[in-house]
Amino acid sequence: MATIDDVLGAIDAGQTAALERLFAFLSIPSISAVPAHFSDCERAADWLAAELGVLGFEAAKRPTPGRPMVVGHIKAGRREAPHVLFYGHYDVQPVDPLNLWRNPPFEPKLEAGPQGEQILARGASDDKGQLMTFLEACRAFRQFGGPPCHVTALFEGEEETGSPSLAAFLADNAKELKADVALVCDTGMWDRSTPAITMSLRGIVGEEVVLTGANRDLHSGIYGGLAVNPIHVLSRILGALHDDSGAVALPGFYDGVEEVPQEILDQWNALNFDAVAFLRDIGLTTPAGERERTPLEQAWSRPTCDVNGIVGGYVGEGFKTVLPAKASAKVSFRLVGKQSPERVVQSFRAFVTARLPPDVKAEFISHAGSPAISLPVKNQALRLARRALETEWGKPAALVGSGGSIPIVGSFKRELNMDSLLVGFALEDDRIHSPNEKYERTSFHKGARSWARILAALAA
Amino acid sequence: MATIDDVLGAIDAGQTAALERLFAFLSIPSISAVPAHFSDCERAADWLAAELGVLGFEAAKRPTPGRPMVVGHIKAGRREAPHVLFYGHYDVQPVDPLNLWRNPPFEPKLEAGPQGEQILARGASDDKGQLMTFLEACRAFRQFGGPPCHVTALFEGEEETGSPSLAAFLADNAKELKADVALVCDTGMWDRSTPAITMSLRGIVGEEVVLTGANRDLHSGIYGGLAVNPIHVLSRILGALHDDSGAVALPGFYDGVEEVPQEILDQWNALNFDAVAFLRDIGLTTPAGERERTPLEQAWSRPTCDVNGIVGGYVGEGFKTVLPAKASAKVSFRLVGKQSPERVVQSFRAFVTARLPPDVKAEFISHAGSPAISLPVKNQALRLARRALETEWGKPAALVGSGGSIPIVGSFKRELNMDSLLVGFALEDDRIHSPNEKYERTSFHKGARSWARILAALAA
Repeated sequence: MATIDDVLGAIDAGQTAALERLFAFLSIPSISAVPAHFSDCERAADWLAAELGVLGFEAAKRPTPGRPMVVGHIKAGRREAPHVLFYGHYDVQPVDPLNLWRNPPFEPKLEAGPQGEQILARGASDDKGQLMTFLEACRAFRQFGGPPCHVTALFEGEEETGSPSLAAFLADNAKELKADVALVCDTGMWDRSTPAITMSLRGIVGEEVVLTGANRDLHSGIYGGLAVNPIHVLSRILGALHDDSGAVALPGFYDGVEEVPQEILDQWNALNFDAVAFLRDIGLTTPAGERERTPLEQAWSRPTCDVNGIVGGYVGEGFKTVLPAKASAKVSFRLVGKQSPERVVQSFRAFVTARLPPDVKAEFISHAGSPAISLPVKNQALRLARRALETEWGKPAALVGSGGSIPIVGSFKRELNMDSLLVGFALEDDRIHSPNEKYERTSFHKGARSWARILAALAA
Repeated sequence: MATIDDVLGAIDAGQTAALERLFAFLSIPSISAVPAHFSDCERAADWLAAELGVLGFEAAKRPTPGRPMVVGHIKAGRREAPHVLFYGHYDVQPVDPLNLWRNPPFEPKLEAGPQGEQILARGASDDKGQLMTFLEACRAFRQFGGPPCHVTALFEGEEETGSPSLAAFLADNAKELKADVALVCDTGMWDRSTPAITMSLRGIVGEEVVLTGANRDLHSGIYGGLAVNPIHVLSRILGALHDDSGAVALPGFYDGVEEVPQEILDQWNALNFDAVAFLRDIGLTTPAGERERTPLEQAWSRPTCDVNGIVGGYVGEGFKTVLPAKASAKVSFRLVGKQSPERVVQSFRAFVTARLPPDVKAEFISHAGSPAISLPVKNQALRLARRALETEWGKPAALVGSGGSIPIVGSFKRELNMDSLLVGFALEDDRIHSPNEKYERTSFHKGARSWARILAALAA
């Protein structure tokens, strides 16, 4: 029987080949939000199914009404070994504005960063690089007879578009997918040298609203003043979504929001989060949200509302004195505690509808909806994984919250009654969802080593 | 010496060839707002210079810092004949959204309309079709020895982008261009059977504002709540541009706005403007502007503010939870009376700047600025032209106001101390600046006849 050091040695020795595999994966522009890239999503799924096959998994691409899932299974040598489900997603965010990239987003490149080499590409950090840390750990175990746990791999292709097919897929395949614990690699480290396990995730509601006034675009010289302008109406509504204290103004929005227990707040305060440096990195000086909350509370435990996109009228070069027929916005809400996505949707739609003047109609499109989730602190897998991470990094793993949403975690709990262990190696300056996304080579290498240690610890 | 009936007969006999010439002109996509179409603007100018040459004008394309002007001169047989300057513009509006056009916008087509044949193309009404009514009148006169007035033709290629080169060109060529009166064909009829002379024009200010927050686009899950969102800030500012009564809220905005004299208001009321039908045609029921003003006052004599375009964040298909670094809007103001464009610009910029939270910067781009203008009722050319129009159409010409802006008219007054006679044959359903722009074949035909009668009347 091989020791963990044999496995870690195999990971260390295979870094060049591991990078080549990751680059091949990153070269596929699997943008799930853009129909022109649906065929690339298929290619990415095929690539993953083939990779799992190479690693000894029984694996297949599995159809959904949207982008396909990839599912694979491999047995441990010991029948009584624990069964883990590993989750990652192969879809990536759109890349615009393309002109801000230093290198084409789907031509991955290794470059020198301020703290060592980094991998530059869309999806390098979110989530292809992270996903591959686990597969590289499995590959190392394969040299010594296979992983110490039974492993099910589940790769999704719609994470960046709100996971519309996920709940039904889990429900339809519950027996096949249910495991003792889910391992999810889509989160970050506390900092460059401190690993983290994410204990809570905000939920999300994504709504698009399209306002329509006249039956066609008009000349503002002829109709201005007489004809209603949907951009004005939309601006007024969006401008009213927050009150002067920075709080969200939707009636009932804060129903179900819970205060963070003092002991957790104390632990967060002990992390000495440097809000000034956090904001300075993105060119800002002043926290913009709820005035009476600390920055870490705002990011991890408070619900928010952001307009993610707005468009109406003429937006090309120069000027056009059009009075547009339509204006639209994409709005997302981050949820915490027991906030109900359905009620937030209802409240938002009522808020908009109540503010429509005569002749303006609103159409709504739902893009996402999932509640917040938090993990029990007493979980045994959590305890074992935390120790494994400490061994690899030489520091205790921070137990943190997250401002982002990973719908899968809620679905695992609801559909499969399965807790999730969220361990990831992204850094806050990875520029995920932005131009020049990168993943540290250290994250990729020590991420694979971390998973090897975690699998060994869970199986012990 | 030929009679006016000979000239009108020549116009009637030449309709087919006249349409072919107009179609050739309409086929040139001379969109002045879009750099990719600058070479098409040159082509349109060349086409016009050649046409003027065919009609006996001494004509040339004349460079400016932007799109070129075209200037031509022709002498009347009688030396003491009056001298008129005819103005039109060869540039057209952008055509998006392209998918709403029934026919490609630069492949002109004759089609049956509810009231007769109409010419479908971008620029058919604004302003290529109108411009050609005058040239077709000149062509008919040419068969009988030339026009009865000395004529200078001036064609501009930047009317749709705020005429940035116009004032300097007029100042630099004042002696060459000065005439007894300017004839401007860029306005409309009162209705399908009633000609109109436009006595007042609103001015315009066009401002673009770009707000910048963070130094890059952010993930709203990680930064939402902490980082300022420029779309929120822009929405709040734009939403505050109007108060609850529909009035523009910029400090000092109404300085210089004059009440319309009661006798003019009485004439307007006598026109029996059907605001319900006017709005019904564009799918609306309720005037949206200042509550205490009649619809005709709102359109002709009151200043307004419209957001003509807004964009920020992700506006593609699907959803992207981005917290954008930038958001921008194009805003125009229509001015009346003695409102100062410079003061409105200053007030707008101060209004925006005063509402910026920490970390948000505003950049401003000026696209247009010209004051309102009105014409003296006692003008002799006006009296003669009104009678000529009545003869052609069998009805007195209405003396109307206009909500739109034609910067040239102010420039003619300021730079050349020349009044303008605004006569045009567009109809309110011509969809100028919108998809499926059209010009009635009747407007084209009787427009040419009207100019023949006006030139004859001015020379009598």
